[in-house]
Amino acid sequence: MFTLAIAGLGTVGAATLSLLEEQAARIASLAGQPVRVAAVSARDKNKKRPCSLHAITWVDDPVDLLSINGLDAVVELMGGAEGKSRQLVETALSRGISVITANKALLATHGTELSALATINRARVGFEAAVGGGIPVIKALREGLAANPMTTIRGILNGTCNYILSQMHEEGWDFTTALTEAQRLGFAEADPSADIDGHDTGHKLALLSALAFGLSPNTTTLYSTGIRHITPDDLSFANDLNCRIKLLGVAQKTAHSVVQRVGPCLVPTTSSLAHVHGSLNAVLLRGDYVGDLTLEGRGAGPHPTASAVVADIIDMARGATPHTLFPTSSHTTVTSHDRSLSFRYYVRLYVHDEPGVVAAIACILRDARISIESLLQRGRSRTASVPIVITTHPTQTGAMKQALDAISKLPTVSSPPCVMTLED
Amino acid sequence: MFTLAIAGLGTVGAATLSLLEEQAARIASLAGQPVRVAAVSARDKNKKRPCSLHAITWVDDPVDLLSINGLDAVVELMGGAEGKSRQLVETALSRGISVITANKALLATHGTELSALATINRARVGFEAAVGGGIPVIKALREGLAANPMTTIRGILNGTCNYILSQMHEEGWDFTTALTEAQRLGFAEADPSADIDGHDTGHKLALLSALAFGLSPNTTTLYSTGIRHITPDDLSFANDLNCRIKLLGVAQKTAHSVVQRVGPCLVPTTSSLAHVHGSLNAVLLRGDYVGDLTLEGRGAGPHPTASAVVADIIDMARGATPHTLFPTSSHTTVTSHDRSLSFRYYVRLYVHDEPGVVAAIACILRDARISIESLLQRGRSRTASVPIVITTHPTQTGAMKQALDAISKLPTVSSPPCVMTLED
Repeated sequence: MFTLAIAGLGTVGAATLSLLEEQAARIASLAGQPVRVAAVSARDKNKKRPCSLHAITWVDDPVDLLSINGLDAVVELMGGAEGKSRQLVETALSRGISVITANKALLATHGTELSALATINRARVGFEAAVGGGIPVIKALREGLAANPMTTIRGILNGTCNYILSQMHEEGWDFTTALTEAQRLGFAEADPSADIDGHDTGHKLALLSALAFGLSPNTTTLYSTGIRHITPDDLSFANDLNCRIKLLGVAQKTAHSVVQRVGPCLVPTTSSLAHVHGSLNAVLLRGDYVGDLTLEGRGAGPHPTASAVVADIIDMARGATPHTLFPTSSHTTVTSHDRSLSFRYYVRLYVHDEPGVVAAIACILRDARISIESLLQRGRSRTASVPIVITTHPTQTGAMKQALDAISKLPTVSSPPCVMTLED
Repeated sequence: MFTLAIAGLGTVGAATLSLLEEQAARIASLAGQPVRVAAVSARDKNKKRPCSLHAITWVDDPVDLLSINGLDAVVELMGGAEGKSRQLVETALSRGISVITANKALLATHGTELSALATINRARVGFEAAVGGGIPVIKALREGLAANPMTTIRGILNGTCNYILSQMHEEGWDFTTALTEAQRLGFAEADPSADIDGHDTGHKLALLSALAFGLSPNTTTLYSTGIRHITPDDLSFANDLNCRIKLLGVAQKTAHSVVQRVGPCLVPTTSSLAHVHGSLNAVLLRGDYVGDLTLEGRGAGPHPTASAVVADIIDMARGATPHTLFPTSSHTTVTSHDRSLSFRYYVRLYVHDEPGVVAAIACILRDARISIESLLQRGRSRTASVPIVITTHPTQTGAMKQALDAISKLPTVSSPPCVMTLED
């Protein structure tokens, strides 16, 4: 008998309980023993839930779950980097109790300490559900591709952003319309900032990057650009460039560092990431031996997430969860940019349509030694501003920043430039 | 120390040896102990190889590898369903020695007996490299999605076929030209029949299907149609239907059975499988909880395959390989068709362009109660035959077969019809 306690009975917690009950025989057979939920804790005992709490002990304080007799592991599904969830996980690990969690914010923020705590106390941590919902990407990095030194991770890790960008592309909507529709359908929260400003993607990227490159999770230098400033013009220009706009989390290994960045990017239609529609998630992993591997699926939602939680429970019960949470084999620095990297850039400006505006921009780029690949102008207007797009040949971040500062100061440029990288 | 012996030093065997040497420190850390190759066996001792055999015992008969002192597992990379590879794996398992193998033909053909042998003798079997090269799809089904009752598997499992079909689509080549180019580039063997007639796909499908549906691998009822009869006209019609032609292995759960089939199919461009280019492989798994999950990557080649072999070695060394080779939880029949299933069909005919030919075909379909979705005719000729394509609404296999028999006998139909299913 493998005995669990579950903290948090929101949609994912309730779906996990239901899955454990509905598939009890299959799970017992794979786990090598029956799995039992002995106790649960959640905010409101009397809330109506789609799962039965019959014969399960209720405790009000989640940390009290750890006192349950014969507890083998605790499942933390409350969320949040601080407060009760942090206290529960820290206490469990310090008592040698293994943890299964979907909490990306907690692991991305406190992963280093939690990993040390788990190792000292010989507790194990399963966190498949923390990234990519039902997509087994944590398992792929921890186990399936374990032999590979990795070179790049590119992930569409936030379903809300991908839904919004997909709708802007397909329906021609502006950002606000697409966000409102996403909120109406339940793909976006009332306060959508964690999603659309890239912080959720950043937490997930930090976890993938830690596993791929043998580092502690690090979000301190992670600079996130969200998608609020993307306009229908950008979608349309991207289309002309045979690209799609995707909010990506990218981690790249260079000679000296791992460069992590989150922001909207232009992905060529030849890439598997370009065809990831709606609220789906996908991760493209590039390893030395395996080459490119793409995993695509439902990155959120109670059922896919419960599928991941239960996979961790089965692994934990049969003793197959890796011993170390974040094996740190490397002392590489994590950074947001690296001089050795250069990118092809997309720069979209709104300018007053006056003679000489293109020349002024071209001179600034020439002075920063940036080579223009293409320059696209759309429409003409004597009164309103018109969009101009410049794409560049590979350019160092520093040079681009310098040029953008100068371009922003041109009196003919009417709003801050929108800058994106063109990915392979 | 985890002690291995390797049987077979072709490109995959040599790449596995190199990977184990190059990544020894990483592998030891993940495996919890150093991994050592104590002995090898291959056909020709004196062949030049890119890996060092220094300090490794050579034996001529692979079965003699099992007598090596302190052997923990044997890695079988010889291939073939019978002969020495079968003898080696059977002998190892009967002595309780765990096996890692890339041999899909062996497991698909003798999986039932080998699984029983492994269970009785408490030996474990890793076979990630048998399907999809570096793509961790076996791990996904055995572990990552273990909680999910699965409903469908659709796989592009043969890189040779996918390369040929991709080139026919992109370059407008006929089958023979594309095959010749594939052979020149090393994507197809001198005798390509195992690939292009679908048998390789069938073996891989049987393994995925066994894991997904809790069955023994079964290829006895598997009917494979290859891709030899696909013409440039088919690629062109598919394009008009917003589809791509892909050789798929498909396994579907119905109320009474699991239906397995291998053949070229029309995949809509909205599906992730449509965008799998060149020699890549991809598998779309549909589970009750996880929804649709697509894994795409390099399905063959020494490095990706070695990546999968070494992932199995690490799992084996840390005791994480599942106990059972093929857990059979279900007594469902495996079949090649099921009355409860109906498909949308694509039927391409070459006909003499005479008055009444379309009417004759339409009457046959009407009599078989098959509803036509579209009818496309291309070109006009008084002398040569012209292609006609009919797509149907969902139709039962039996009705389709009956109609095709009658259509084939029409004097105006000049060659056997090409029939494909239109997939979701």
